[in-house]
Amino acid sequence: MQYIDGGVCAPKGFQAAGVHCGIRSKNTDKKDLALIVSDELCTAAAVYTQNKVKGAPIAVTREHLKDGKAKAVICNSGNANTCAPNGVEIAKKTCDLAAEHIGIKAENIIVCSTGVIGEELIMEPFEKGMKPLVKALSYEGGTLAAEAIMTTDTVSKECAVEFELGGKTCRIGATAKGSGMINPNMATMLSFITTDAAISSSMLQQALSQDIKDSYNQISVDGDTSTNDTVAIMANGLCGNPEIKEDGEAFKQFCKALAMVTKVLAKKLAADGEGATKLIECQVTGAPDKETARSLSKSVISSDLLKSAMFGEDANWGRVLCAIGYAPADFSADDITVEMSSKKGSIKVCEHSALYPHSEEKAAEILSETEIKIDVNLNQGQEQAAAWGCDLTYDYVKINGDYRS
Amino acid sequence: MQYIDGGVCAPKGFQAAGVHCGIRSKNTDKKDLALIVSDELCTAAAVYTQNKVKGAPIAVTREHLKDGKAKAVICNSGNANTCAPNGVEIAKKTCDLAAEHIGIKAENIIVCSTGVIGEELIMEPFEKGMKPLVKALSYEGGTLAAEAIMTTDTVSKECAVEFELGGKTCRIGATAKGSGMINPNMATMLSFITTDAAISSSMLQQALSQDIKDSYNQISVDGDTSTNDTVAIMANGLCGNPEIKEDGEAFKQFCKALAMVTKVLAKKLAADGEGATKLIECQVTGAPDKETARSLSKSVISSDLLKSAMFGEDANWGRVLCAIGYAPADFSADDITVEMSSKKGSIKVCEHSALYPHSEEKAAEILSETEIKIDVNLNQGQEQAAAWGCDLTYDYVKINGDYRS
Repeated sequence: MQYIDGGVCAPKGFQAAGVHCGIRSKNTDKKDLALIVSDELCTAAAVYTQNKVKGAPIAVTREHLKDGKAKAVICNSGNANTCAPNGVEIAKKTCDLAAEHIGIKAENIIVCSTGVIGEELIMEPFEKGMKPLVKALSYEGGTLAAEAIMTTDTVSKECAVEFELGGKTCRIGATAKGSGMINPNMATMLSFITTDAAISSSMLQQALSQDIKDSYNQISVDGDTSTNDTVAIMANGLCGNPEIKEDGEAFKQFCKALAMVTKVLAKKLAADGEGATKLIECQVTGAPDKETARSLSKSVISSDLLKSAMFGEDANWGRVLCAIGYAPADFSADDITVEMSSKKGSIKVCEHSALYPHSEEKAAEILSETEIKIDVNLNQGQEQAAAWGCDLTYDYVKINGDYRS
Repeated sequence: MQYIDGGVCAPKGFQAAGVHCGIRSKNTDKKDLALIVSDELCTAAAVYTQNKVKGAPIAVTREHLKDGKAKAVICNSGNANTCAPNGVEIAKKTCDLAAEHIGIKAENIIVCSTGVIGEELIMEPFEKGMKPLVKALSYEGGTLAAEAIMTTDTVSKECAVEFELGGKTCRIGATAKGSGMINPNMATMLSFITTDAAISSSMLQQALSQDIKDSYNQISVDGDTSTNDTVAIMANGLCGNPEIKEDGEAFKQFCKALAMVTKVLAKKLAADGEGATKLIECQVTGAPDKETARSLSKSVISSDLLKSAMFGEDANWGRVLCAIGYAPADFSADDITVEMSSKKGSIKVCEHSALYPHSEEKAAEILSETEIKIDVNLNQGQEQAAAWGCDLTYDYVKINGDYRS
């Protein structure tokens, strides 16, 4: 099981493309329309935002995935098609248009949008862009699709792994976008995952639903759950393994490979959070149960106070304990150890839930790096989990408040 | 029922004082020790932080209030006595010392601390300061006490009301501190409330526990629940009303007067949030139940995205809907109206959960004021609630991250 180059086109039989079709009102030639198409009909699964205010494309994708099958993903950036007129109708028309040009059924298309909310998404750019988009499809087009789904992401994000399944070489590839803003909208997390493994749609859904608990659901840039978050996975079976239909060794291998991909992308999303200068990982160990470890690690990386302290390169362990203390979980806060580390070394700052004497200079040196790890040991069990976030910076406020000037 | 000047000394029979005794390690002559003493033994009640990591003084105060009686409050700023060596012992010693100098029982003292966490609170400054503090007690000392509990609050906060109870003129007075930081600690909200009404300690607890749901619990500066939050109330009965022992007209009047005081202080705390330039009030109406209205209004004023937009004076209603959508409550998000208003006027920006066409220039003019109101109507019930917060600014990041430079 190893990382390989590439993204959604790494597995066999997936083509992708990304073009500029003019969805953004501003003058820009940024790519804004992405397409991923499988040579064969796939089993498919997805998870969606828990926000009660949902983008219109989610309703359409949910309908199309009822049969657990899909063949393509169409995704635009620049407009979220959320709280906007005729949203569902436009999402459906987009699928119809893509289906016609690709030559597949509209109900086999996953549709997503990210960008401005509250503004009508008009069909004209799609009508203009769909033909060149389909024409541009290629087995090397993964990066173009990864670029086309970006909003204010500063880098495109891809990851792929290769592994064995039933004597066959399988691959899982993916792209993701996050935490970017365009006037006036909100951060949306999207991720599209492809694989040439053969796996039933119900097992695929089980794998994905379980996986996100320790990957995409464990990251936060600002705690604002978007209206459009979607993670979708398609499996076309072209690697030739016996189809995974139930739990067992093959399923475990598949889940392990999936986790390798999604964790890397989750970290990339956190590191590219709006205005971020540092990736912050919090690992909670010694927890009484897994859910407590998840909840506590996420509470730490979500705390504005801790995020500001990391920006200031201040080993403010009191804010770590504070964030742990108000997390919604059941545990004892009496014997907590906190260590902070980076490439520059490691330092213990708290023991038995109280100050552990340490050099502030050494701590500041460790925190001067761009990747910081905070280890929290609750000393009361065997479970552990991690979460990823970023520092809170002047630029976060600038990006989200000051864009008019 | 009317507002009057003053704070904790507005009701009959309460003296207060505030002095500098040197708890902060830095060179400063800021007052850091506050005392409030009632002429008569009071019924008393308190509510505390829900954080599992609690300041040591909370354990001592909780013990002292078991009998529902108190006569004094001693509170230092500059050190939170939290996650620090010998915390409970030092909080007890502080009570002993105060009791000795005032000439009362230590178990009738409410003790609180706010400031740095993780650093040992030493007794020496208390030993030096207690005598002058007690000597300085006066019926006009409320403001001195209000100043002594401040951390990085920019203004001291007091409020008082006068009202009739059983033919007698009663008063409730209070002070509060919030949302300030000192290296390295976290924001702590403290409020001390006094009254000359006669009311049993169980009814006092009931009044306070109910009140905070719509006052102090409905404010947020950064979502970080402190380790030391405490609201305490003492009633000495000197106004001569028949003691309130059960629910009824007198209790309702008392609760109404209490709400007048706590809501004003809650708003003052939000307006003085770290780095804040604007007070933001969110009023949710048309809710199916009270708890939903509370939850939704608080979610809006807690959203970093919305807070940043307010700083940028951008009528970003999409972020209001987003924050409502992810609040933990059960309601329909299909027919939401959003209006924004200030001294400069009012503007509808969202109707039926979608864009309501409006002038962005007019909206920006309205948001240029320092007090902004966001009205959200869910159009599905009769309940309502409000919450108060502030904008997220460069100075928040500066205060909490950049203090080393």
